[in-house]
Amino acid sequence: MSNGKPQNAKPQTAITPTRADNYQDWYQEVIKAADLAENSDVRGCMVIKPWGYALWENIQHQLDAMFKATGHVNAYFPLFIPLSFLEKEATHVEGFAKECAVVTHHRLVAKDGKLVPDPDSVLEEPLVVRPTSETIIGASFARWVQSYRDLPLLINQWANIVRWEMRTRMFLRTAEFLWQEGHTAHATRDEAVDETMKMLGVYAEFAEQYMAMPVIQGEKTAAERFPGAVSTYCIEAMMQDQKALQAGTSHFLGQNFAKASGIQFMDQNNALSHAWTTSWGVSTRLIGGMIMTHADDDGMVCPPRLAPRHVVIIAIAQKPEDRPRVHDYCAALAKELRAQSYDGAPVRVELDVRDANGGERRWQWWKKGVPVLLEVGPRDIDKDSVFMGRRDKAPREKAGVARGEIVAKIGTFLQEIQDNLFARAKVFRDANTKVIDTKDDFYAFFAEPKKKQSNDPTPIHGGFAMTHYNGDPALEAKIKDDLKVTVRCIPLTGAEPGTCPFTGEASKQRVVWAKAY
Amino acid sequence: MSNGKPQNAKPQTAITPTRADNYQDWYQEVIKAADLAENSDVRGCMVIKPWGYALWENIQHQLDAMFKATGHVNAYFPLFIPLSFLEKEATHVEGFAKECAVVTHHRLVAKDGKLVPDPDSVLEEPLVVRPTSETIIGASFARWVQSYRDLPLLINQWANIVRWEMRTRMFLRTAEFLWQEGHTAHATRDEAVDETMKMLGVYAEFAEQYMAMPVIQGEKTAAERFPGAVSTYCIEAMMQDQKALQAGTSHFLGQNFAKASGIQFMDQNNALSHAWTTSWGVSTRLIGGMIMTHADDDGMVCPPRLAPRHVVIIAIAQKPEDRPRVHDYCAALAKELRAQSYDGAPVRVELDVRDANGGERRWQWWKKGVPVLLEVGPRDIDKDSVFMGRRDKAPREKAGVARGEIVAKIGTFLQEIQDNLFARAKVFRDANTKVIDTKDDFYAFFAEPKKKQSNDPTPIHGGFAMTHYNGDPALEAKIKDDLKVTVRCIPLTGAEPGTCPFTGEASKQRVVWAKAY
Repeated sequence: MSNGKPQNAKPQTAITPTRADNYQDWYQEVIKAADLAENSDVRGCMVIKPWGYALWENIQHQLDAMFKATGHVNAYFPLFIPLSFLEKEATHVEGFAKECAVVTHHRLVAKDGKLVPDPDSVLEEPLVVRPTSETIIGASFARWVQSYRDLPLLINQWANIVRWEMRTRMFLRTAEFLWQEGHTAHATRDEAVDETMKMLGVYAEFAEQYMAMPVIQGEKTAAERFPGAVSTYCIEAMMQDQKALQAGTSHFLGQNFAKASGIQFMDQNNALSHAWTTSWGVSTRLIGGMIMTHADDDGMVCPPRLAPRHVVIIAIAQKPEDRPRVHDYCAALAKELRAQSYDGAPVRVELDVRDANGGERRWQWWKKGVPVLLEVGPRDIDKDSVFMGRRDKAPREKAGVARGEIVAKIGTFLQEIQDNLFARAKVFRDANTKVIDTKDDFYAFFAEPKKKQSNDPTPIHGGFAMTHYNGDPALEAKIKDDLKVTVRCIPLTGAEPGTCPFTGEASKQRVVWAKAY
Repeated sequence: MSNGKPQNAKPQTAITPTRADNYQDWYQEVIKAADLAENSDVRGCMVIKPWGYALWENIQHQLDAMFKATGHVNAYFPLFIPLSFLEKEATHVEGFAKECAVVTHHRLVAKDGKLVPDPDSVLEEPLVVRPTSETIIGASFARWVQSYRDLPLLINQWANIVRWEMRTRMFLRTAEFLWQEGHTAHATRDEAVDETMKMLGVYAEFAEQYMAMPVIQGEKTAAERFPGAVSTYCIEAMMQDQKALQAGTSHFLGQNFAKASGIQFMDQNNALSHAWTTSWGVSTRLIGGMIMTHADDDGMVCPPRLAPRHVVIIAIAQKPEDRPRVHDYCAALAKELRAQSYDGAPVRVELDVRDANGGERRWQWWKKGVPVLLEVGPRDIDKDSVFMGRRDKAPREKAGVARGEIVAKIGTFLQEIQDNLFARAKVFRDANTKVIDTKDDFYAFFAEPKKKQSNDPTPIHGGFAMTHYNGDPALEAKIKDDLKVTVRCIPLTGAEPGTCPFTGEASKQRVVWAKAY
């Protein structure tokens, strides 16, 4: 991979183990190789490194624009929630009590040469570090809403959240994570339901158009409902181990939280009513979803619309006397590319003129998932052409392309990559989604496979089973016990009455069954 | 103020009390009237409301661009800091131990029908909610830095911070606040010092060019130094009660934190050295500074470059039959204005077509500090002209302006307002800055005034005293005891040897003395 020349022998993958060898370890290794994040010294908390954070910034930037375009404004509410607030909604507190970071003291004091919480600084009421903000935001809404003229309230918050998870995995499940949480209050049930569905649609659009991650929109069963919600809707994506990832949720909260927080208003007829509220959120978990949708055995693959850099130009000049010429050429190329636009903004270009070996640098960027890598050496300049590698193709597929063509077509190339990633993920999902109509087939689909040979290309297990279901929670619990498989969602589309294969009872429609993260 | 007609009698100010009557209450009332923030139910924590948060978003947007332009990248580190980390730097922990929120449990459990922290969930090591992140970021830097090639590390974090302050005031001093903290590591002392000063300069530029708030750049004395720093630099601004506000700090940390965290690297000669680090931050306190620099007895005044809206168009149509015509005209005007640009981006325009009384709406926006208010009624349309009010002028000064002129000149108007606000603040500061050379004059300058008559326009007390100082911490402590006055900073410019009026000893230069927030 050095000297800007294509190399035919690729001795091994950049990531060890590969997906087929050990999917979970592969995931951790991709995060490490792409410099996305690392575990911190604080149990279950990760450090999001600059490359990973840049993905989050791009996610934020786009989602924030979509929230504002749908009439929402941002605000900020306290990190701490008084215990009594959490208790106001019974189901809610039950859902979060077991995983709360609790602040009990407000001062440290030296004791036997060590610092300890000062016993004289015990808080009268313990504070919980927010696991979600319905109750604390509800308290503000109750102050803000007096009349129907104050509605709807359409608020979003970008914040950090803490849930004391016992088993953590970077991006997917961490004690602290970053997210946005939308909170809205409406005068009527219908309006709140509309908002819930609208924001689910925003999430689906974002996942598919920006993350290049196909998703199914649907409703959760009671077992997976947000604690305190009337109904929870979600977008579900398939990861490369065929498991499901819940990538975003939108909750219709009815009047539950309005009653708990006292959000009341005078309606047009001078009657006092409780508001109807919603909440909806996505988190840094999306980055985990992006990795597990697109990354391969050579590392991360960034969808162009969210990539921190669209193009990296690697200047390769082994002889010192070649350097000025090569660097000048690359700088000029970078300038030309930055003058192009992709997705409504200038193309993001990084120029790599470091001293290190060209092949090494190329692999670094490849593992980070940069969509387009350009390599430029003295002989390329003589031909006014550069070597282009595209992250949606094999690493050895790089080919010489005339400089003018790269510049003219960079936006097209990037959109092709974006489209290819989505198409590939959709083919994968569809190939691993099966319409199943008998209990035996269902159990076989999700059975643990025999110990796999290395390089065995067979699926790890199952995928999405589209199977009828009578809606009985006890049946879902039984299947979860048996197979660790749950109803991921009841899709919004595709109602088709049929028979539940587990009970023989009537079913309104097929639902998506899968193992889940 | 109704019907789009100018009104000559302004019965009273929009804010009660006025600045002269009761400055502290005035400040709280401005925050309320402009809908910037409110106290929450959590001790010392505020809710930043959408209009206040929009100011913060604009601050973030601009500072983030300036940080990136100076080579920094964003990352994210844990909210929680193990107690043992904080203890690593002795001065540091001493500075923060007395105001820490301490997490001691990770679960709640029901007891006597109430939730309490579960005694079985006590953390082995208590966690402190970050009061600043030098130690937790230092732990990552120690992992990231091996060789001089890994330096400099130029990282910034946008985050929430908790310091358990006993006396809080919205934006200025709250238990939780939002900020950015830059953390950098360098191979040499000189490089780290350069970084410290460069970021101080970025803050000064931002304060003056964007916030329209004149600042003095200087160094802190030992008494006001960041706990653990070798030297602390700051920007200091004068508020309208003549007190000083420390608006941003930049710390040269020497090798103190590198030694505490083990940030070591192999230099070019293969010798192991500790890195040199810096940190620097500004917070939501800047919004408090903006209020106390620009707001007046009619409410908030937003500097145009940071204003959530540059222009609000108030459509006034009392007769229902006029509404379509007025709304259409206003919508067309909004579109034309949005097509103009100010400060490199489209003009931010809000169209207010609510049913409420025009005068009431106008006061709402005036109190929120929108730079340009336009009122449009049927008779204005007939003349193709609108009433313009500018927030840097008196509320009754609004005048009819031809529509074409408004559109053509909106960028100019906004920049004039921006410039006027800065000039006005500078005149105020200069008028309340006095070169003082005797102890008696100094004490008289800062003496508490006699009980003021209402509407007494005399200054509340003092201002900035530019007075020589021998540098003795005991003297500074004495003056603080006597007058609550401290050295706000030793200005970077203006070295001028002289005599300390308190001791008769030599002084290198005049320093800025003032009461401070």
